[in-house]
Amino acid sequence: MGKNDDTGWSTAPFEALRASGLGPIAAFDAGSRPGFDGDKDRGEDLLTERGEVLADLQELLYANGRSGDTRSVLLVLQGMDSAGKGGIVRHVGGLVDPQGLAIKGFGKPTEEELSHDYLWRIRKALPTGGRIGIFDRSHYEDVLPVRVHNLVPESVWEKRYDEINAFEQELVDGGTTVIKCALVVSKAEQKKRLTERLERPDEYWKYNPGDIDERGYWDDYLEAYQAIFDRTDTDTAPWFLIPADSKWFSRLAVCELLIHTLQSLDLDWPPADFDVETEKKRVEALDV
Amino acid sequence: MGKNDDTGWSTAPFEALRASGLGPIAAFDAGSRPGFDGDKDRGEDLLTERGEVLADLQELLYANGRSGDTRSVLLVLQGMDSAGKGGIVRHVGGLVDPQGLAIKGFGKPTEEELSHDYLWRIRKALPTGGRIGIFDRSHYEDVLPVRVHNLVPESVWEKRYDEINAFEQELVDGGTTVIKCALVVSKAEQKKRLTERLERPDEYWKYNPGDIDERGYWDDYLEAYQAIFDRTDTDTAPWFLIPADSKWFSRLAVCELLIHTLQSLDLDWPPADFDVETEKKRVEALDV
Repeated sequence: MGKNDDTGWSTAPFEALRASGLGPIAAFDAGSRPGFDGDKDRGEDLLTERGEVLADLQELLYANGRSGDTRSVLLVLQGMDSAGKGGIVRHVGGLVDPQGLAIKGFGKPTEEELSHDYLWRIRKALPTGGRIGIFDRSHYEDVLPVRVHNLVPESVWEKRYDEINAFEQELVDGGTTVIKCALVVSKAEQKKRLTERLERPDEYWKYNPGDIDERGYWDDYLEAYQAIFDRTDTDTAPWFLIPADSKWFSRLAVCELLIHTLQSLDLDWPPADFDVETEKKRVEALDV
Repeated sequence: MGKNDDTGWSTAPFEALRASGLGPIAAFDAGSRPGFDGDKDRGEDLLTERGEVLADLQELLYANGRSGDTRSVLLVLQGMDSAGKGGIVRHVGGLVDPQGLAIKGFGKPTEEELSHDYLWRIRKALPTGGRIGIFDRSHYEDVLPVRVHNLVPESVWEKRYDEINAFEQELVDGGTTVIKCALVVSKAEQKKRLTERLERPDEYWKYNPGDIDERGYWDDYLEAYQAIFDRTDTDTAPWFLIPADSKWFSRLAVCELLIHTLQSLDLDWPPADFDVETEKKRVEALDV
């Protein structure tokens, strides 16, 4: 995209938000808007406008998938509690035809999942051809809480970075374009969101007392996230930092990253796999 | 709902569109609008308005699901080719949070699926608690094309009506509310839609030469549909006829049926499963 006044960005988000260019996460400003010049009103208008572009591209991907193209897209979402992962699924995923989505949330592994390799449940949820997969948490949980709490020995989680790179390379080789977004929320904003959840009975269900416990490991999480960016931010499967203190900005940013990703597939409408003229005659000849 | 001027309906769609009250499908007018008094403009405005009601109810269902409620909703869509099943998934499903949907399309069964009982693939795709499942085609394929073309002997498909009733009773007993919508398109409108697909290269992917062949069995299909309504339109899992010559009407009708279904669950926000005051104090005490 590059410089493009129409979209409100001075630097395309695919460049401006790439983790490798943004320095240590511990110093990252969750209220910043790298590459974006507009304000909230502009951002919200843009999400509507650009949502239509995204929907058109998604239909193109879906049409190709229905015609046998095995390419797909996988959007990985990670982020601290209350960073807004669910909101991204709802408000960015909600911009496109839900038929073309493969959404999967990864919570605490079940007993069956734990009895398999950690990538087992991930592989089962991968998008098929023509679909956009959205993972709300992912295999990165196995080097985030698992590392922070040493749920497996360091000798085990330490090997996972390379394993994950190999896994993602395999996905990309197989035709899945992978982008990974870490939603970054500040401690202050997290406190605000947790407070709100406790003030509204219609948000109690989003509140989990364990979130406060996890917040106690904030710096350990930052370290674990930094390790991810240092070791798994590859050109094959890049990481992006999404400042998430403003929900409107994080949604716009992820929408733009998806648009960029889909545009890079350079899709066209699939050609007819039948003779158009013959079929036209058949339809014309129908009764009624 | 009953008589309700706000919604544009003189008779609630749950009553007005119930298959058992609408006479034989062979005489059904695919351009009619049973129970609805408004025009297209009003219908389109209504879909936007009522879409928000649907989205709120869906969030309520999802919140309960996240809190352990195992209830779910299953919307079964059937209809002749080009009746607009995909459009319902996109434009009605698209009104709600895609996280809360479990969408599954059932095409020609794979070899693996054929090696199992016909309900095997259906069971695997059922919505989990808190979700709205949408089936684009379903187990009814096994008494529609399968019956029309005698893909299995009559002695086999003949038993399926009772089996399906038993299966659906089991789902309902397990907490899944089932509604079934047959989208009814006229032969004239089908011809129009097929013609359009052949005129637009961006719609070639939706065209299937086999659809013309299937149209040759129109009356057999009507008979097979009639058998479904006669034998599987139960109060447990009711069938609705959705006139589908006007896309806006079919979408509005299905939206209203979903709203009715979700309202009948009489959901409330799940209560906190933690002590709110204790948690408020914990959050207040947080740094930052």
